[in-house]
Amino acid sequence: MEPSPAIQDHYPDDVSHCYGCGRLNDVGHQIKTRASDGGTTTEFVPEPYHTAIPGIAYGGLIASVIDCHSTGSAAIFAMQAGSRTVGDGESPRFVTAHLEVDYVAPTPLAPMVLSGRLVEIKGRKVVVDTDLSVEGEVTARGHAVLIEMPDGL
Amino acid sequence: MEPSPAIQDHYPDDVSHCYGCGRLNDVGHQIKTRASDGGTTTEFVPEPYHTAIPGIAYGGLIASVIDCHSTGSAAIFAMQAGSRTVGDGESPRFVTAHLEVDYVAPTPLAPMVLSGRLVEIKGRKVVVDTDLSVEGEVTARGHAVLIEMPDGL
Repeated sequence: MEPSPAIQDHYPDDVSHCYGCGRLNDVGHQIKTRASDGGTTTEFVPEPYHTAIPGIAYGGLIASVIDCHSTGSAAIFAMQAGSRTVGDGESPRFVTAHLEVDYVAPTPLAPMVLSGRLVEIKGRKVVVDTDLSVEGEVTARGHAVLIEMPDGL
Repeated sequence: MEPSPAIQDHYPDDVSHCYGCGRLNDVGHQIKTRASDGGTTTEFVPEPYHTAIPGIAYGGLIASVIDCHSTGSAAIFAMQAGSRTVGDGESPRFVTAHLEVDYVAPTPLAPMVLSGRLVEIKGRKVVVDTDLSVEGEVTARGHAVLIEMPDGL
């Protein structure tokens, strides 16, 4: 089965330069967030130098991928709320107003899977919770409040 | 006047590989956090590719520098609570249990100044609040709960 399309591949060009998730940022992480099982999923493979202590991912990377995964998730949930799916025209673009990360266990420096859930959608505001897992174990949890970017920011 | 010494220059070698703040991570940010005016200060200059949208820093970078600045601040505050100053032997090393960031305004892609304040210190736990400013304007606020790393983690 084809994977569902990534929201970041459908952002307008002028908001696609984010280091974390912009497809037009050549040196960035270029994460890809997709609708999945009523929620959202992002897979990310860290580089060997993304360490906290050897073998463990640093907290800033975890916050960063949760942040961009949350903005992408918000856009997916907002499209679904409007009976649209990713690829149905340009995607809305959200920015983060508030981010929380709980580091519940050391995160091994290995492929990460982020799973997003819609908590609330109200006007231009979307709230998203995220579990970040490595090898099936949740090592960090995210909670983010995202706001749809006004035109012309 | 000489700047006060950076806490990251006094971490034990085996916990100095963090991408955000490790002096032994050749490709990382290598932030430096110093005691300053009853609090702590970190200065950081982002790279041109650390964008959210052109001219604005991406949220993950802001979370990342607040995170590492908070771990460094916690170590400084813990040393001060024990009547030690940075450079008086090896520094303790803290890890983040909980991180919050409020993005109160877009952060220009320009030199950042982070100012840390001690909120609480209790046993191995330290709570730190941070203001991140660019050109004198606070654009993000951090709140972090840090735990002193157990020996042998």
